[in-house]
Amino acid sequence: MTELSVALIGGGFMGKAHSLAYALAPIADDLGVTLRREVLVDVTPESAAAAADQLGWNSSETDWRAVIARPDIDIVDICTPPDLHEDIALAAIEAGKHVFCEKPITNRSDQALRMAAKARAAGVVTQVGFNYRHTPAISFTKQLLENGKLGAPLQFRASYLQETSFNSDPDRWRARKSTGGSGTVGDIGSHVIDVAQWLFGDITRVTARLRAKAAGDLGWVTESERLDQDLIDDSGVWLAEFANGALGSFSVNSYASGRKNRFAFELDASKGAVEFNWNSREEFRVSYLDEPADHQGFRTVHTNGQHPNGWWRLAGLGTGYVEVSAIQFQEFVRAIVKGEPARPDFEDAARIQQIVEAVHESAVSGQWVDIPGGSR
Amino acid sequence: MTELSVALIGGGFMGKAHSLAYALAPIADDLGVTLRREVLVDVTPESAAAAADQLGWNSSETDWRAVIARPDIDIVDICTPPDLHEDIALAAIEAGKHVFCEKPITNRSDQALRMAAKARAAGVVTQVGFNYRHTPAISFTKQLLENGKLGAPLQFRASYLQETSFNSDPDRWRARKSTGGSGTVGDIGSHVIDVAQWLFGDITRVTARLRAKAAGDLGWVTESERLDQDLIDDSGVWLAEFANGALGSFSVNSYASGRKNRFAFELDASKGAVEFNWNSREEFRVSYLDEPADHQGFRTVHTNGQHPNGWWRLAGLGTGYVEVSAIQFQEFVRAIVKGEPARPDFEDAARIQQIVEAVHESAVSGQWVDIPGGSR
Amino acid sequence: MTELSVALIGGGFMGKAHSLAYALAPIADDLGVTLRREVLVDVTPESAAAAADQLGWNSSETDWRAVIARPDIDIVDICTPPDLHEDIALAAIEAGKHVFCEKPITNRSDQALRMAAKARAAGVVTQVGFNYRHTPAISFTKQLLENGKLGAPLQFRASYLQETSFNSDPDRWRARKSTGGSGTVGDIGSHVIDVAQWLFGDITRVTARLRAKAAGDLGWVTESERLDQDLIDDSGVWLAEFANGALGSFSVNSYASGRKNRFAFELDASKGAVEFNWNSREEFRVSYLDEPADHQGFRTVHTNGQHPNGWWRLAGLGTGYVEVSAIQFQEFVRAIVKGEPARPDFEDAARIQQIVEAVHESAVSGQWVDIPGGSR
Amino acid sequence: MTELSVALIGGGFMGKAHSLAYALAPIADDLGVTLRREVLVDVTPESAAAAADQLGWNSSETDWRAVIARPDIDIVDICTPPDLHEDIALAAIEAGKHVFCEKPITNRSDQALRMAAKARAAGVVTQVGFNYRHTPAISFTKQLLENGKLGAPLQFRASYLQETSFNSDPDRWRARKSTGGSGTVGDIGSHVIDVAQWLFGDITRVTARLRAKAAGDLGWVTESERLDQDLIDDSGVWLAEFANGALGSFSVNSYASGRKNRFAFELDASKGAVEFNWNSREEFRVSYLDEPADHQGFRTVHTNGQHPNGWWRLAGLGTGYVEVSAIQFQEFVRAIVKGEPARPDFEDAARIQQIVEAVHESAVSGQWVDIPGGSR
Repeated sequence: MTELSVALIGGGFMGKAHSLAYALAPIADDLGVTLRREVLVDVTPESAAAAADQLGWNSSETDWRAVIARPDIDIVDICTPPDLHEDIALAAIEAGKHVFCEKPITNRSDQALRMAAKARAAGVVTQVGFNYRHTPAISFTKQLLENGKLGAPLQFRASYLQETSFNSDPDRWRARKSTGGSGTVGDIGSHVIDVAQWLFGDITRVTARLRAKAAGDLGWVTESERLDQDLIDDSGVWLAEFANGALGSFSVNSYASGRKNRFAFELDASKGAVEFNWNSREEFRVSYLDEPADHQGFRTVHTNGQHPNGWWRLAGLGTGYVEVSAIQFQEFVRAIVKGEPARPDFEDAARIQQIVEAVHESAVSGQWVDIPGGSR
Repeated sequence: MTELSVALIGGGFMGKAHSLAYALAPIADDLGVTLRREVLVDVTPESAAAAADQLGWNSSETDWRAVIARPDIDIVDICTPPDLHEDIALAAIEAGKHVFCEKPITNRSDQALRMAAKARAAGVVTQVGFNYRHTPAISFTKQLLENGKLGAPLQFRASYLQETSFNSDPDRWRARKSTGGSGTVGDIGSHVIDVAQWLFGDITRVTARLRAKAAGDLGWVTESERLDQDLIDDSGVWLAEFANGALGSFSVNSYASGRKNRFAFELDASKGAVEFNWNSREEFRVSYLDEPADHQGFRTVHTNGQHPNGWWRLAGLGTGYVEVSAIQFQEFVRAIVKGEPARPDFEDAARIQQIVEAVHESAVSGQWVDIPGGSR
Repeated sequence: MTELSVALIGGGFMGKAHSLAYALAPIADDLGVTLRREVLVDVTPESAAAAADQLGWNSSETDWRAVIARPDIDIVDICTPPDLHEDIALAAIEAGKHVFCEKPITNRSDQALRMAAKARAAGVVTQVGFNYRHTPAISFTKQLLENGKLGAPLQFRASYLQETSFNSDPDRWRARKSTGGSGTVGDIGSHVIDVAQWLFGDITRVTARLRAKAAGDLGWVTESERLDQDLIDDSGVWLAEFANGALGSFSVNSYASGRKNRFAFELDASKGAVEFNWNSREEFRVSYLDEPADHQGFRTVHTNGQHPNGWWRLAGLGTGYVEVSAIQFQEFVRAIVKGEPARPDFEDAARIQQIVEAVHESAVSGQWVDIPGGSR
Repeated sequence: MTELSVALIGGGFMGKAHSLAYALAPIADDLGVTLRREVLVDVTPESAAAAADQLGWNSSETDWRAVIARPDIDIVDICTPPDLHEDIALAAIEAGKHVFCEKPITNRSDQALRMAAKARAAGVVTQVGFNYRHTPAISFTKQLLENGKLGAPLQFRASYLQETSFNSDPDRWRARKSTGGSGTVGDIGSHVIDVAQWLFGDITRVTARLRAKAAGDLGWVTESERLDQDLIDDSGVWLAEFANGALGSFSVNSYASGRKNRFAFELDASKGAVEFNWNSREEFRVSYLDEPADHQGFRTVHTNGQHPNGWWRLAGLGTGYVEVSAIQFQEFVRAIVKGEPARPDFEDAARIQQIVEAVHESAVSGQWVDIPGGSR
């Protein structure tokens, strides 16, 4: 394998983010293969051509089925709205392509499980755009948990907060469940769930409460009003039990003033603790128990070439959104080259979607809901 | 009323903290009355005399019943272990004294409710040592919520984390429920519940999970093992619904490496948001929606004389633990002088204890548990 | 010695701060002696009586000379405007009293040196109110420099910023050199100089630039205009050489928007580095060279009972302005009890004033100015 | 003009950084022209070919003179060691190419001034790699100073700290002045000077002290020892006067433990203040005077599409080193397309080099040194 040709389906915001990341990934590190940004697919010839031109793709098309059928295409990257994900992914898998799909891979876990099963059967490499876990500080945390340096998992606290829903059109498709809106749990909460499971292992049970915003300067509507009015969840809180006994506490809110895009977590383990905030993503913050009493506390380490996926010898140069996205594609390409599974793959994404649905189910029933299946 | 004489029952750590606070309170501001640190009661004549001498009290005694009976005593301040609180408080109330009691006022809400009822009937002023709420940044947040500047409550996220249980004697009385240990929910979680209700109104329902630490470098024992082994909860997570529909998410852990004493919360409301961390308690951090798009974000305000309970014209001089404790006694004394209820009083504390118990009950049953009673 | 009686001269802001600190100091720790707040002296009988009553002093007087003459007074604490410091201090020294004097002890180093010489000759203990150095995080830094843990001093960067001059009366006495105004270098810069020398050793040379604010929304007037108009310095920057070869960079400004009271420094040494900010004074922040490459960075340690002058076993309880002031008086009283010099004493203060004057001289001459005298 | 072809001279660390930035720049925004990464020049055919392949250039060469002579090349980007900059730049200018040159453009201001004059005469666009100023938070600060929102400049405090010199080879060429080492003032201090002048206007005078590190765990050697031993400056502090009367204070150190790459500044002006730290470069922090007294303080704004050069509608996505470098090339290309000067150009860089040399001169003479020339 000397070359991998990519077809990008969807030239919107996420298509742009992926294009930037593909441009960086092979320059930043030798991936052992040439990555060709071959064709961008969008709805109309004009939009496709304009996007391909602006985003640096060799050609443009409008028929994703025809593109997937092309033998010169190795990777299909899906950046469309979620309701198209399944069709495109299954077609690509069937054609033997490796598939990168933005999250959520679908809003229904049964679809997601089917997609994961098909991909496994076909032997193609899949990956889903839970980009945050590829941050070097998080990868390093994973290493420290795996090699025992942090001890046994005890408690995980996380939140993902935005203020995007203020001043947004209440009639946008994203605001309605029936038109494909994922809600805060599915949209941003899924990132938190991904990282939680990546670091602490399987979540086995959840209990939850969800809310949607009432019109005007008022508070929330109740869960039953929310469902009656076909509203997505704007706010959610849930508890989780992990398979290893650790406890988790999670919060999401898209009506959080001043929170532009704050994904943050804290984890406590039996030998140390870590905290992370995407808004200072270059900082790995860790505390260890085995320090002298007068020197105990959190240390702030700027991630660098001595940490997983760090690109530069000089820490503090700085890692941005595009760079972390590029790391995600480096991981994907390396997995293809090695013939190994990439992570998080469709199977991981299906489990995340199961948890999202369990959160929704619990919000209605008021009961703890078990997550079926188990650790891979 | 020109003078108030205080009897302090208990000369340990908390007795020292109160003594320091009493020393500051009347100097920092004119309370309209002279505060006399009259008598300190402790277990033996020697310990009582030594403590009175060191902590600046005029005299010492060993018999709290006799002291309470003295007509010259106006205030009884209870700093004993929790299992003595009810007896002392009821005796003091019966004698017509105003009572300040450290938290938890008891580990049983039925006792607490009884104490609250007796105090109300007797017309004495009571206050309980939930000191954090008296921090100027929190008092200011309360003002902004009350005057509508922040809009309607939406979400409240809070945690109280310590690492005190590492290296502690597993056989200490505090570590066993049967010997009076309150556990993390009752001990530190109660502070969080107090502030949550003070700011967002009544909590009406909770669901929870609790854990205790297994011996050695291992994870948690399950809830049933915990209860079987007569262990207090070392870790807890719970969700809450507020009467106004807002959601809450809470976490406590006494096995949180690097967290010396971290009490922190974030609240989102429909016009703005506030965050607070006791470890930077002089900072009031607020975001408002109605800012120009290029200037939105959290601002950090150093509290000062222009905020409630600020002592100094010059912000940034700095507020410590003792100063906040002194503010708490200023509030107590002012309430006595005015003949008004102090807050948080026995009634508030009883409700907090009800919530603590609901958290424990839910951790066993796996069900949401309603909190009886309602807003005052 | 079983008792020390204090006479406080001056019942204003600083008299209040000292009163609060005296109230705390002997309760927080056993000082080996009883501290009596005996008499408060102020200008009129009414102001003196009111201050004594509010601030907790046993009696009040208006004639400081008479009070100093009283044999029952052991300590004279001077909180008057600076132009009275010399007279009061010399009288107290002559009467054999120990003297605590607020900073600046004078605005003239020749006076200060004379005062230091008299105190040394009389064998009394003196201390000056450079309170910041008593912060536990700074005391711990001093220890680490002395025991070699941080290696050799390399660079010291410090600033003290306030916004107090905005909206202040331009005709207040503090704003004019001729009416006793110390300017930012003498008033707040002196704190920075004190800590710099305490940690890094003697400053031997300085070069400087100073400015005063022009009226209205304009910039600075030049140094010559400033002196012509009898203005104090509102802004200053200076460089320093330390006796050990280290370099220093210093800035002060009283027109720094948003800076309520920000005293901060960073120091680099050959084995590690420390940074400190009074606005988060409970945090000791240190970096060491000898850490693994993937764990290098600053750690944040909450100071506590395991650090010098920490009062509590539980770090993170919090240290405020009054508590640090109380530590300062604990140090003073302990020195008197032991019969040892306190620090910073009149000699230290005189050297600081020499440096302040060298900064002023350099701002006029444009030359580096040597500081006479040397290390003690 | 529809296409601009770039020749990159030098395929090392900086060549890689530029390659990544060129890959991003035209995708992130429509620059009105196609940017071709045409040819990479390096020392040997092998190194050039390998670098071109890895870094995404169409071809490779070893003879920069031949490449500059090619009519299809529009832009020459110089990433070689500094001693080659002048020859390459002058050849490129003579050939009518636009020139991007890494900093320092030279270590001698006379050369730099000559290069600037030639470029001006030739009418080509030049830009120098002072990348930090292109950070959106800094560009926004520039806007606010220009439109009067912040008022008149008062004080500028800045430092650039690294720990790169610990464990470095003392015999590397960068460590000796005679072998082309720029020292901390020229290497990292120049970035600080660039931003200071960009925001506050011309620096007119400086006074300085410099030091080099002695061998082993010792302190500094003196300035005269440093020059005798042909050492570059490892540490420097200097004061500056700006043309508008503002004061500046600057520090650099490459022996600052824990400082991976910390470029930070604070500025005070008559209506507000701003602070910036590259390690949290997405945060614009500002304080304004005209706020209510109980809401004064610094606010933290995450930069986004509503700020200059922000790429994304969603603030908090995050801006990294490569993204800021890409903004720098966007600015360069836009200037070429518009036929306007880019900033900072060779003229700006020459003035920065004059200031660097004035700092060195002052460190020897002990005198304030005037910077010749003036504002553009």
